[in-house]
Amino acid sequence: MKLYDCAMAPNPRRLRIFMAEKGLELPRIELNILAGENLKPAFLAVNPRGLLPTLELDDGTCIDEVMAICRYLEELYPWQPLLGRSATERALVESLQRRAEFDGMISGSEVFRNQHPQFAERSIPGSGGQPIPAIPGLVQRGHQTIGRFYGWLEERLQRTPYLVGEALSMADITAWCAVDFHAWIERRIPADHPATQAWHSALSARPSAKA
Amino acid sequence: MKLYDCAMAPNPRRLRIFMAEKGLELPRIELNILAGENLKPAFLAVNPRGLLPTLELDDGTCIDEVMAICRYLEELYPWQPLLGRSATERALVESLQRRAEFDGMISGSEVFRNQHPQFAERSIPGSGGQPIPAIPGLVQRGHQTIGRFYGWLEERLQRTPYLVGEALSMADITAWCAVDFHAWIERRIPADHPATQAWHSALSARPSAKA
Repeated sequence: MKLYDCAMAPNPRRLRIFMAEKGLELPRIELNILAGENLKPAFLAVNPRGLLPTLELDDGTCIDEVMAICRYLEELYPWQPLLGRSATERALVESLQRRAEFDGMISGSEVFRNQHPQFAERSIPGSGGQPIPAIPGLVQRGHQTIGRFYGWLEERLQRTPYLVGEALSMADITAWCAVDFHAWIERRIPADHPATQAWHSALSARPSAKA
Repeated sequence: MKLYDCAMAPNPRRLRIFMAEKGLELPRIELNILAGENLKPAFLAVNPRGLLPTLELDDGTCIDEVMAICRYLEELYPWQPLLGRSATERALVESLQRRAEFDGMISGSEVFRNQHPQFAERSIPGSGGQPIPAIPGLVQRGHQTIGRFYGWLEERLQRTPYLVGEALSMADITAWCAVDFHAWIERRIPADHPATQAWHSALSARPSAKA
């Protein structure tokens, strides 16, 4: 297996933290998304969508999408499970991970991509280089959705130490990467959200935070 | 368990087809999304996001998001697996299901919601009744992404009878529901996409198509 990665980008970071928490290492090929290396012919020959991260298996099969790669790795390396420890937990991790992704990560990406000149023709990822123009209205909508993301995080973390019960899961990792990504668009955890602040401080102190 | 459902809506239909293919039946509570029944206090007390479908477990735990519910049911009722039969297949079903969802289903929803007067303040689902204004630019972008969805479907189905190899999976079900949903926005499978036409005809003849 080898992993096509991008050190600076928030979605590849979700996978790197997941792997670090499980103690997994894979050969990595680094590509710079900002410079558009993921849209050059060499990588489009591997993944025509140009998406990072992409996991290439030894038989040449390519798996893209963070959660698909995580699920594959969790199945191969089931120790330190991060996708839930029971059927109910697995369903809740999937549901809450998705909520963190849509309201935190994708909303952040909408704000970032639709106001950054470098992405004026790359409004959404996965277009393999086809131009998709930015839509300025998504910046405001993204900020609005990020507001509901923080409200939800605080309400949830007031009740439990992690998003799904007593253990770190992929739902936390996605929310955490979204929070850090929001620095790019000058959003921070609101000062009156103490549970979210404490959760984020604890996560940032984990060795996997450097992944 | 009981299922909060909406007969007319495309995402609940993904789950109903999944259940029909596995021969599962659950008590159902029907809510009308177009009339906003999912945003009234009675349902917001069950799921504050107002999302359908929602599965309520006997202990009161609520699971929303189609794929989270499917994963829970697949784990409880593993016969007729629709999420893949091996680690690699499961990763590919997840990746391709998601692609069908983003490029087919969510793009269709962007076109529909951002041009339909009923959704002028409900641009995205899951806001629990908070107004989120429509963004007209998403209509054109949605149509563009639907174009790449059909190109991808045809290229894939020229090579294999189903999206992931030799068996029906949730990737097909999501793409199929997206195709049928596109009738709402007057998009059809392009006439020069014979493999997609044949795949869709075969799926539409399955008993689960009525679910």
